[in-house]
Amino acid sequence: MTEEAEVSPTSSSDQQAPHFLQDVIFHGKFKLLKALTPEENTLCQHGLYFQDGQRRVDYILTYHVKKLAGGRSGRQSSHVLTENAVARSLRRGPQSFGEHFRLHQAQRARNSSSLPSSPVADVELGCPGETFNGQEDHKMFRRKEFEGKLRDMGLELEKDEDTKIAGVGFVKIHAPWNILCREAELMKLKMPTKKVYEVKQLSGVVEKISSLVSKVVEPLHPHVDEHQPKNFKHLSHTFSREKQHLFDLSDKDDFFDSRTRSSIVFEILKRTKCKAKYSMGITSLLGSGIYTAAYPLHDGDINQESFNDRKLLNDEWANYSVFYKYQPIGLVRKYFGEKIGLYFAWLGLYTQMLIPASVVGVIVFLYGCATVDDNIPSMEICHPKNNITMCPLCDKVCSYWKLSTACATARASHLFDNPATVFFSIFMALWAAMFMEHWKRRQMRLNHEWDLTGFEDEEEALKDHPRAEYEFRVMQKSLSKDKKSHHKIEKLTCQDRLPAYMTNVVMMLLMIGVTFAIVFGVILYRISTKAALHMSSNPVTRSHVQLTVKTTAAIINLVVILILDEVYGAVARWLTVLEVPKTDKSFEERLIFKTFILKFVNAFTPIIYIAFFRGRLVGRPGSYLYVFESYRMEECTHGGCLMELCIQLSITMLGKQLIQNNLFEIGVPKLKKLIRYIRSKQGAFQEEERQKKLQRYEADHFLEPFAGLTPEYMEMIIQFGFVTLFVASFPLAPLFALLNNIIEIRLDAKKFVTELRRPVAARAKDIGIWYNLLRGVANVAVIINAFVISFTSDFIPRMVYQYMYSPDGSMHGFVNNTLSYFNVSHFQEGKEPMDPLYLGYTVEMCRYKDYREPPWSTTPYEISKEFWAVLAVRLAFVIVFQNVVMLMSDIVDWLIPDIPKDIILQIHKEKILLVDLFLKEEQGKICVLESRASTGGKENCSRSSSSNNNNNNNNNSTTAPPGSGLHTNSTKSL
Amino acid sequence: MTEEAEVSPTSSSDQQAPHFLQDVIFHGKFKLLKALTPEENTLCQHGLYFQDGQRRVDYILTYHVKKLAGGRSGRQSSHVLTENAVARSLRRGPQSFGEHFRLHQAQRARNSSSLPSSPVADVELGCPGETFNGQEDHKMFRRKEFEGKLRDMGLELEKDEDTKIAGVGFVKIHAPWNILCREAELMKLKMPTKKVYEVKQLSGVVEKISSLVSKVVEPLHPHVDEHQPKNFKHLSHTFSREKQHLFDLSDKDDFFDSRTRSSIVFEILKRTKCKAKYSMGITSLLGSGIYTAAYPLHDGDINQESFNDRKLLNDEWANYSVFYKYQPIGLVRKYFGEKIGLYFAWLGLYTQMLIPASVVGVIVFLYGCATVDDNIPSMEICHPKNNITMCPLCDKVCSYWKLSTACATARASHLFDNPATVFFSIFMALWAAMFMEHWKRRQMRLNHEWDLTGFEDEEEALKDHPRAEYEFRVMQKSLSKDKKSHHKIEKLTCQDRLPAYMTNVVMMLLMIGVTFAIVFGVILYRISTKAALHMSSNPVTRSHVQLTVKTTAAIINLVVILILDEVYGAVARWLTVLEVPKTDKSFEERLIFKTFILKFVNAFTPIIYIAFFRGRLVGRPGSYLYVFESYRMEECTHGGCLMELCIQLSITMLGKQLIQNNLFEIGVPKLKKLIRYIRSKQGAFQEEERQKKLQRYEADHFLEPFAGLTPEYMEMIIQFGFVTLFVASFPLAPLFALLNNIIEIRLDAKKFVTELRRPVAARAKDIGIWYNLLRGVANVAVIINAFVISFTSDFIPRMVYQYMYSPDGSMHGFVNNTLSYFNVSHFQEGKEPMDPLYLGYTVEMCRYKDYREPPWSTTPYEISKEFWAVLAVRLAFVIVFQNVVMLMSDIVDWLIPDIPKDIILQIHKEKILLVDLFLKEEQGKICVLESRASTGGKENCSRSSSSNNNNNNNNNSTTAPPGSGLHTNSTKSL
Repeated sequence: MTEEAEVSPTSSSDQQAPHFLQDVIFHGKFKLLKALTPEENTLCQHGLYFQDGQRRVDYILTYHVKKLAGGRSGRQSSHVLTENAVARSLRRGPQSFGEHFRLHQAQRARNSSSLPSSPVADVELGCPGETFNGQEDHKMFRRKEFEGKLRDMGLELEKDEDTKIAGVGFVKIHAPWNILCREAELMKLKMPTKKVYEVKQLSGVVEKISSLVSKVVEPLHPHVDEHQPKNFKHLSHTFSREKQHLFDLSDKDDFFDSRTRSSIVFEILKRTKCKAKYSMGITSLLGSGIYTAAYPLHDGDINQESFNDRKLLNDEWANYSVFYKYQPIGLVRKYFGEKIGLYFAWLGLYTQMLIPASVVGVIVFLYGCATVDDNIPSMEICHPKNNITMCPLCDKVCSYWKLSTACATARASHLFDNPATVFFSIFMALWAAMFMEHWKRRQMRLNHEWDLTGFEDEEEALKDHPRAEYEFRVMQKSLSKDKKSHHKIEKLTCQDRLPAYMTNVVMMLLMIGVTFAIVFGVILYRISTKAALHMSSNPVTRSHVQLTVKTTAAIINLVVILILDEVYGAVARWLTVLEVPKTDKSFEERLIFKTFILKFVNAFTPIIYIAFFRGRLVGRPGSYLYVFESYRMEECTHGGCLMELCIQLSITMLGKQLIQNNLFEIGVPKLKKLIRYIRSKQGAFQEEERQKKLQRYEADHFLEPFAGLTPEYMEMIIQFGFVTLFVASFPLAPLFALLNNIIEIRLDAKKFVTELRRPVAARAKDIGIWYNLLRGVANVAVIINAFVISFTSDFIPRMVYQYMYSPDGSMHGFVNNTLSYFNVSHFQEGKEPMDPLYLGYTVEMCRYKDYREPPWSTTPYEISKEFWAVLAVRLAFVIVFQNVVMLMSDIVDWLIPDIPKDIILQIHKEKILLVDLFLKEEQGKICVLESRASTGGKENCSRSSSSNNNNNNNNNSTTAPPGSGLHTNSTKSL
Repeated sequence: MTEEAEVSPTSSSDQQAPHFLQDVIFHGKFKLLKALTPEENTLCQHGLYFQDGQRRVDYILTYHVKKLAGGRSGRQSSHVLTENAVARSLRRGPQSFGEHFRLHQAQRARNSSSLPSSPVADVELGCPGETFNGQEDHKMFRRKEFEGKLRDMGLELEKDEDTKIAGVGFVKIHAPWNILCREAELMKLKMPTKKVYEVKQLSGVVEKISSLVSKVVEPLHPHVDEHQPKNFKHLSHTFSREKQHLFDLSDKDDFFDSRTRSSIVFEILKRTKCKAKYSMGITSLLGSGIYTAAYPLHDGDINQESFNDRKLLNDEWANYSVFYKYQPIGLVRKYFGEKIGLYFAWLGLYTQMLIPASVVGVIVFLYGCATVDDNIPSMEICHPKNNITMCPLCDKVCSYWKLSTACATARASHLFDNPATVFFSIFMALWAAMFMEHWKRRQMRLNHEWDLTGFEDEEEALKDHPRAEYEFRVMQKSLSKDKKSHHKIEKLTCQDRLPAYMTNVVMMLLMIGVTFAIVFGVILYRISTKAALHMSSNPVTRSHVQLTVKTTAAIINLVVILILDEVYGAVARWLTVLEVPKTDKSFEERLIFKTFILKFVNAFTPIIYIAFFRGRLVGRPGSYLYVFESYRMEECTHGGCLMELCIQLSITMLGKQLIQNNLFEIGVPKLKKLIRYIRSKQGAFQEEERQKKLQRYEADHFLEPFAGLTPEYMEMIIQFGFVTLFVASFPLAPLFALLNNIIEIRLDAKKFVTELRRPVAARAKDIGIWYNLLRGVANVAVIINAFVISFTSDFIPRMVYQYMYSPDGSMHGFVNNTLSYFNVSHFQEGKEPMDPLYLGYTVEMCRYKDYREPPWSTTPYEISKEFWAVLAVRLAFVIVFQNVVMLMSDIVDWLIPDIPKDIILQIHKEKILLVDLFLKEEQGKICVLESRASTGGKENCSRSSSSNNNNNNNNNSTTAPPGSGLHTNSTKSL
């Protein structure tokens, strides 16, 4: 009946007349009352409840509405919908009826007063004077069908088209108690029962220590009062209407909290399908613009005086002033759901784990600083007596130079290239393994606390709904093939996707190629600039060549990385859309995979170049390697490339974090606010005021939609890469990551609490693909660190020298040993220095860093035996390091149980308690049944079920006497 | 009442008198009838059912009984127990009553006839004339308490002490329908519902291919008719009494099959505790000898004519004649439970996967055979013109020898040392990864088929019951500490376990030390025997030195391995018992861990020695390395050690399999049978006859108890080690493993079907720790194969020669290149050959296999540059091989989804169907309720729930008209 009214708005007005009249009366009365109540509070109530003030709004759908025409039809439908509520309140009695009346009236009043408000979000709205066109008509029809189906599913709806935001209609959805129960049962939600049990306390010394620790960390806990005492826990059980008596249903409004309610409604929305040309779910409806948005409501305003979870989160979590505290993860989960809760728990654990890593990193760095003066190789280099003449660093313009001029670099190199670094990279590999293990344990603990144990396949199903784009493509395909074959096409085959896959592969390779090209370009820039600057006549320029070139190149690299990061993000998304993955889960995974590869390649290619390729493809004096036949390949400075790697790493990491986080994430919003402030000065003060008076659902409509956790995780995983991958060359990385993350947590928290629409709570037991990526990064880190230590640093040559070649077993003579001889008469034609007397004397032999035979051997300039020996030791070190560290990680993995022991005990205890509970109940039921059957006897039945009777006086169950058991509430209520 | 009768047997006889009389009447009548029915069938019925012939025996407990005294009390209690059944059959009506009567009577008749049977299993029984002593009294008291508790839990018990096996009393346990339902609900068993759905068929070309394939493999399927058509599947749902209407309960006797029934009873047994000094569960009772055994019954006899699952399994599975067929895994699972089903499924998949591996292995071997004549190094060695004089192989007694005499060995070496081997070991690494992945998929598929999806923590709880030994130790501890402290001791601390842990560590190290010592002993045997034989004057002995020594050493090794295998198995068990692990699961894991380490070390130490140490610590001519200052370390023959590795491997593997499997597992039982046959000739034929007439539970009592799957898995995992670890040196390993496993499957099957008591069905989703061990072995295999290829084989030196040193890029000159020069004048005093003219000419320079500088260089006999170069390349190969293969394995892992696609689709479909089912039911209920509330209207309610109404004529649920819905059976039955 009501449906038809909406289909033909012109003809339905007559039919609707009685209701309409009723409405008018309600509205009038409401207006009266509204003037008497405090405005703020009512407004709040308004936003969060239906117009009867009783039914919570659990979900909002929005759609475009034609302003003029919509004004009438909207109002109409709103009335039609509320008719139900009226009927209900009539049944409830006169008091409730009056209340509803008042509310409705107020709504009418507000509606009319807000009519001249400015249009805010109707950019897509056509000419206001235009009448219904076919498109709009079609959309409205679909909406009506969909809403009809929702009502069939038992949801209650209320429409509101005359909002302050012109052009946007709202459908408010409420799930009544019955529906909530039904869905909770279907979703197998675990809910706390009335049964409370004591969590076993530790005993003896352990207890004292733990209580001491908890006292010490007390100020670090956020002021979020958990409602139940710590030592007691509610037994949880899958919700079931047949077992309703187990649960504390005294407050039916709060039994399911707002998060659960909205996810239940969302579950129904996903299940409901329109039968158009193809089956359309809510995702398709959103995708095709029939609805414009779908979101649950925030619990309240953060600036509001009354208490709500959002405000609490804002004060105790999304606040820089509490940066040193633990996060209120329980509350975060309660408000945002398990998936987001897990993200913040993970981020928190990661940040915590960074503390020991940065402490050790700083110690390693300080050790380097302290031992820099005892380092024999750098002492030898710096010693003025050691007058080694080195071969020129570039052709023609450069001349011979003295090794002692590289003193500063050699000393600086020692900071990052000392034995402590080897220890540190082993430490960090184990740290990563520990982190993984701890996360598994934390995850298990949270799973237990959040009653997720046992929930498994539901998670899969949650994401298994086909995406709108996929359904659309399938429909397109079946339409185009309809004539040829008769059987319905239900999926896309590989053939359909082949073009997209090809594009993907090509684009990915192209993008990676672009990265390589850019890195190569920067190399060329460095080589050519260096050559050019060397040729400069200005001595100041020439003396600062190294510094200028390195810094500018690093900055160019950074800028390129930052730009490409954004570009690659967009490209990855575009490629994934091209692929048309079937489900949201698959879409997410493919997107993550592509983004991960591109961003990783982007961030780490320049670094990998410096670590493993730079200075290796140089050739030797007399036969250098040339790029484009004119540029000699770069060499590293004397201390090895580790120093340069360190500079590049720190600039990339710090730059990325500072610019991406602080500039983009903090700066841009601040700037926007500033602009808004400047505007509001000249503009109108009422804009702000109007904002305040917005309904909750209107206010939330202004917020950004939640776009998934992918960017947050991605940022963190790349940071994890910086912390672990090249940690052998930059022990301060964990410290910088720690500092960044302390800000990051609160930044993300602020975003979720204040800037985003409330996300639908999603259940998740783990962080999914991210864990695998972390594991992958940690594994790659072991190999890369092995190579950095053995190939980039001078650790192995030093060891080899000390134990194989040193005459006295010390490092004395190491520098001399690493330098080969070159007879300057062997320079190629035109490559010899133009100023051979630069050092003030004639040079016959110059030295260069390589293991080659001297000019006087039978095979001059051939690779020497020492080279092979050092290479063999280097490779052996890689094998040993990799396998030992992997083995140690596996041992850590194996030693630390995945499930904390106390959780195992608790789970076991809960299981026993539950079985006990059910068995007692059972006994009770049988007693009742039998007391009805046989009317004799007064013996207490519950005794036979209690386990402490030692008198062996039990009865066979068949002849059990009747009794009043524990059976309290086994009647079935539907 | 009945309880008290048992507590005081002397006083209860009066009380029991009426029942006793009743019994006598029953028995008399039964005897009459029994004479008319075929004996066999009744006997079967007897064993499998209570004496009333109605109630199935679901579980058996046995205990020791005093023969004389027990005779009376036993009979009595048996009657007491059946009283219930009588009462029930009386209630059921006269017909059933008569039946019960007959059965009971027959039992009595049989009892009296079997009295003079010989005692078979009462070795532990004391003097038969002895009266009750305290110990026995105590045990009986405990039993009575325990049985009382079982009856409280709702189980029905029947005792039988006058069996053919004197001294053994049987408690037969039956779980009535109510109890089964209750426990199924508690255990969250998934049962098939009435709802059947069609499994989607493949379409198009894929369908045709799959149907073709299934036609081809049709004869490979066992003749086990699955009851339902293949394309349909029953929807499963967790059993719940409230949802009883979902299930097909038409045949309540068969709804829960015998496996489920026995596991339900076992679950109750585990949960029931006696309150003695300490809480005693069934494990404690068994441990302390209060009960002697606990087992469920087999379904019937294998030689019986009537149909039963055991017979079917015996015919279609435990039979060598069907070795080429698939296993009837579904039936195995139905009979033995999921855990054993998974073992056989795993074994089957492993065997299947060995087929391609052995095919490729044989091809690789044949490739070696085919190319042996094209192999340049062996050609060069065999060429008579190449007259290289080699240094003597031992001091003094040996003389110089010509390289061409090593021709045969060089040719044989090529069979296993060719480039195809490298390919094969990469192939096998990927094969192992594929095997893992396929197993994961198979496991998922079985999980789905067996309705295990969603079952998770139950598995843990199943094994979480403390072991009897643990409880005993805790009790001991609390008794000893009772005086000091008051709080109850509930667990063993680390301190209590420290001695056991220390013993463990020491013993493990000792055992590993023993293995090493034995390997070293064998080396010494080889060296000394070789030296002794060389000194022998008999030329025949001298010519066969190599062969004699190698073969005897390998056989000694094999024998030692076989003996130590048994010893280590016992030691590991003893050590684990010492540790007193808390739960069965923990016991099993610790035992497996220890056994695995010891057996692996035992099996692979000699092989690892040959692969990586032999021939490397030899020294060089003029400065050999000596053991005990007189024995020179062993060298390998010229073709490298790969040949010897291959011999050792094949002897160990084949010997282990042939002797352990065929001799121990097949031979010993056959021998026993033979002995029994010889005995029966002289003894008595009636022994056999008597066996046949045994009750089912008596017959099963004679079988071996089931001792876990650990030995079976362990055998297979060590075989897996042989197949993967050194596969680079022995490509035929998979073939031998395949041949062994084809026998192994049927052998194990026979054991389970005919020789073991039926194990309690245990639910398991996976093969647990074994999967991790397999993974570990596969990972280690990658590294070991990398080392075998690069260090044991000559692959790398050949490559290095070909690409770095060869003048023409071919292998010509390789043999010469690998041999260093030695000036015979540099021999140490007294070590030079006694017969320097053995070859007929004076030798000035001899050659030896090593990369060292020639005597004329500036650093004679120093390690040469080539050595380092080859070493570097070898190490580089290891790094590349390991990482590439691991990466490829990871890619295989990632490419093959863990869950097969069709299973995902099915799970999803089932979920949707279930939700639909419940929603429809829901709608039905609402309709009924409302039709009761408002008595008007006849509109059909089901229409609003069906989803195909396009007329948009839906009603709000609040005003839904009444109707007769789909609601069929929503009344609650308890």
